[in-house]
Amino acid sequence: MSRVSLRGKMLPPSPIRKLKPYDDEASAAGKKVYHLNIGQPDIETPQEMLDALKNIDTRIVGYGPSQGIPEYQDALIRYYARHNIDLKRENVIVTTGGSEAITMAFTVCMDPGDEVLIPEPFYTNYNGFAIAAGVKVVPVTTRLDDDWQIPPIEKIEALISEKTKAILICNPNNPTGKVYSKEELSEIVDLAIKKDLMIIADEVYREFIFSGEKHTSFMNFERAKDRVIVVDSISKRFSSCGARIGAFLSYNSDIMKAALAYGQARLCPPTIDQIMAVPSADLGDDYYKEVVNEYRHRRDVVIDTLKEMDGVEFKSPNGAFYIVIKLPVEDAEDFVIWLLKDFHVDMETVMLAPAEGFYSTPGLGKNEVRIAFVLNVEKTVKAMNILKKGLDVYMSRS
Amino acid sequence: MSRVSLRGKMLPPSPIRKLKPYDDEASAAGKKVYHLNIGQPDIETPQEMLDALKNIDTRIVGYGPSQGIPEYQDALIRYYARHNIDLKRENVIVTTGGSEAITMAFTVCMDPGDEVLIPEPFYTNYNGFAIAAGVKVVPVTTRLDDDWQIPPIEKIEALISEKTKAILICNPNNPTGKVYSKEELSEIVDLAIKKDLMIIADEVYREFIFSGEKHTSFMNFERAKDRVIVVDSISKRFSSCGARIGAFLSYNSDIMKAALAYGQARLCPPTIDQIMAVPSADLGDDYYKEVVNEYRHRRDVVIDTLKEMDGVEFKSPNGAFYIVIKLPVEDAEDFVIWLLKDFHVDMETVMLAPAEGFYSTPGLGKNEVRIAFVLNVEKTVKAMNILKKGLDVYMSRS
Repeated sequence: MSRVSLRGKMLPPSPIRKLKPYDDEASAAGKKVYHLNIGQPDIETPQEMLDALKNIDTRIVGYGPSQGIPEYQDALIRYYARHNIDLKRENVIVTTGGSEAITMAFTVCMDPGDEVLIPEPFYTNYNGFAIAAGVKVVPVTTRLDDDWQIPPIEKIEALISEKTKAILICNPNNPTGKVYSKEELSEIVDLAIKKDLMIIADEVYREFIFSGEKHTSFMNFERAKDRVIVVDSISKRFSSCGARIGAFLSYNSDIMKAALAYGQARLCPPTIDQIMAVPSADLGDDYYKEVVNEYRHRRDVVIDTLKEMDGVEFKSPNGAFYIVIKLPVEDAEDFVIWLLKDFHVDMETVMLAPAEGFYSTPGLGKNEVRIAFVLNVEKTVKAMNILKKGLDVYMSRS
Repeated sequence: MSRVSLRGKMLPPSPIRKLKPYDDEASAAGKKVYHLNIGQPDIETPQEMLDALKNIDTRIVGYGPSQGIPEYQDALIRYYARHNIDLKRENVIVTTGGSEAITMAFTVCMDPGDEVLIPEPFYTNYNGFAIAAGVKVVPVTTRLDDDWQIPPIEKIEALISEKTKAILICNPNNPTGKVYSKEELSEIVDLAIKKDLMIIADEVYREFIFSGEKHTSFMNFERAKDRVIVVDSISKRFSSCGARIGAFLSYNSDIMKAALAYGQARLCPPTIDQIMAVPSADLGDDYYKEVVNEYRHRRDVVIDTLKEMDGVEFKSPNGAFYIVIKLPVEDAEDFVIWLLKDFHVDMETVMLAPAEGFYSTPGLGKNEVRIAFVLNVEKTVKAMNILKKGLDVYMSRS
């Protein structure tokens, strides 16, 4: 009798966490491990934000409003104006990371037993949030061979049941790096209207598009105004993963009312971290340009090495800072463990995320891994060369 | 078609928030409002914590571990050792406030449709967390006339169904200020064992006991070791409500495993705020003594005035920093609104929390209010005198 609920038992342990013992073992054996497996960038948090943190001068670290401190709500409003998204404070609830915004969205749009459509492979934690909320994820499979495009809309429509209440789209996509076209998004909007679904838009990688085109937000579709929730986060945009500052945005006043009630129950998001986040909104084009250039450079370096690797399939990602590649192996997890346990180049090795954990359909992604461009170019070059050599050795074992 | 889920519609707006417009109106009319309605203390955050915040020197505000940074886990372990509670890191998951710990507990102990027993009146937000988690609160009514004691155990047992999975006890209690006796707690433990329930122990007011006796934690009951979850928070203990640092503590390894999986999905609690919280564990007896003395003094001042008020019933609370009193009015909410709208003493008035929102049973608490001892003695004296005068005037209206 463990007294754990069914959903508690179903909560998936993090697929990355699962391999942590091998990572620790490698380190203990004196190996240096390049971590391309997690989304923790090495880019510095903007100085303006670190300064704001330094300058906090309070005697009491008190509650803020449940919807966020007005200074940060207004900062977000200024940030979104850059993207031609016109928000008022009533459209903004500051959350504890994008994570809380997703849980909030699942809770206010869905009841236990309801279903949410999500293109797979997807950010693994959607699964955990769904299980905790008692909601069922129905995967919409996308494939490397189709350049990770959204499948024909009839295929998605066929997955919709009476219990389907929402579709969650992550754009640019984690883990594939895919940036969906305006046409693809428009079709999703039409489907949502036809089938009366909410659209939960995880757009936290909005700034990271390499081709130079501007991001299209679901909030840009006037006809979907009352059925879109945007999930925001400063974690990646301003390399502030540990601040846990996100936001829940919507023009639907009923949804906002329910989300605020949810927000009032948990009182408020962290006050200090919001104060730190305020100046982020006023960073200029130069900041974004520099960061995007850096990630583009890393992507190019990764792609250059991948091109030299026998039997590896991939599409060059146009956004976020991830790529999912197909390896000429049977079991990518076995390969990742082998890299940590049995391989090194001058006592250095590399860690990747097996992609199976990003799929909901059993069996998919077994020979795929996700690479995160989170290390600087010099380290990425080293890590990718180790990966290349490692795959050669792994494939040539008898 | 609002597209809001059933539970989204059920989420209760904060009972305090509800009266905010009247509060704002009073301020707009030039009145000074003494806020005895909320649990935001005016005590300063300890200097050691503010210094730790000032001294944070990082270039990247990065993710911490899902279970919390080890420095803060260890700080909590040191803090609990003061209370003869022996914890290891494996028993500690740092959370985003006590709020997240409660949601975590509801999720890992209960499935949608399951029931949790909670003595009422209770901290209103338990309701929001339960609704969001799809869990049903079954109230165990406690009464002022019984000095807010836990009712006879047979009465509680009669409320248990097959769906009952847990009992949540807040001790010292918000909103009544009741400190339960060791005997009462022991009976709860026996019941939990008999009926195979988990005990969710919200002990965030542990330090605030006025009689000098030591707090008894459910973790002190050896025979309940594997069925207790303690909800911790630094919000009140160290007057750091806005830091959103709490903890989920248990000796049950299956429960901890599920809670960690939940924790991994949301990545981590705020990093900076944890760093700030580390030195809190090493505050000496003097700190606690001073804070408890301050709250005791405030309680005494409140009680002194209450004694002078005609027709007001109350029991002097022995813990936390709240009291629930019965007023000689029909509708306490009407009285609270009247105080804000239609009353002042030299342009000053007072705001209280109508207690109806703290009850789950309809109709209860209609003539009760909660008073929070969150203002310094001077202000509390002023506020209580205004309340006394206000009640006189309110009662003598024709």
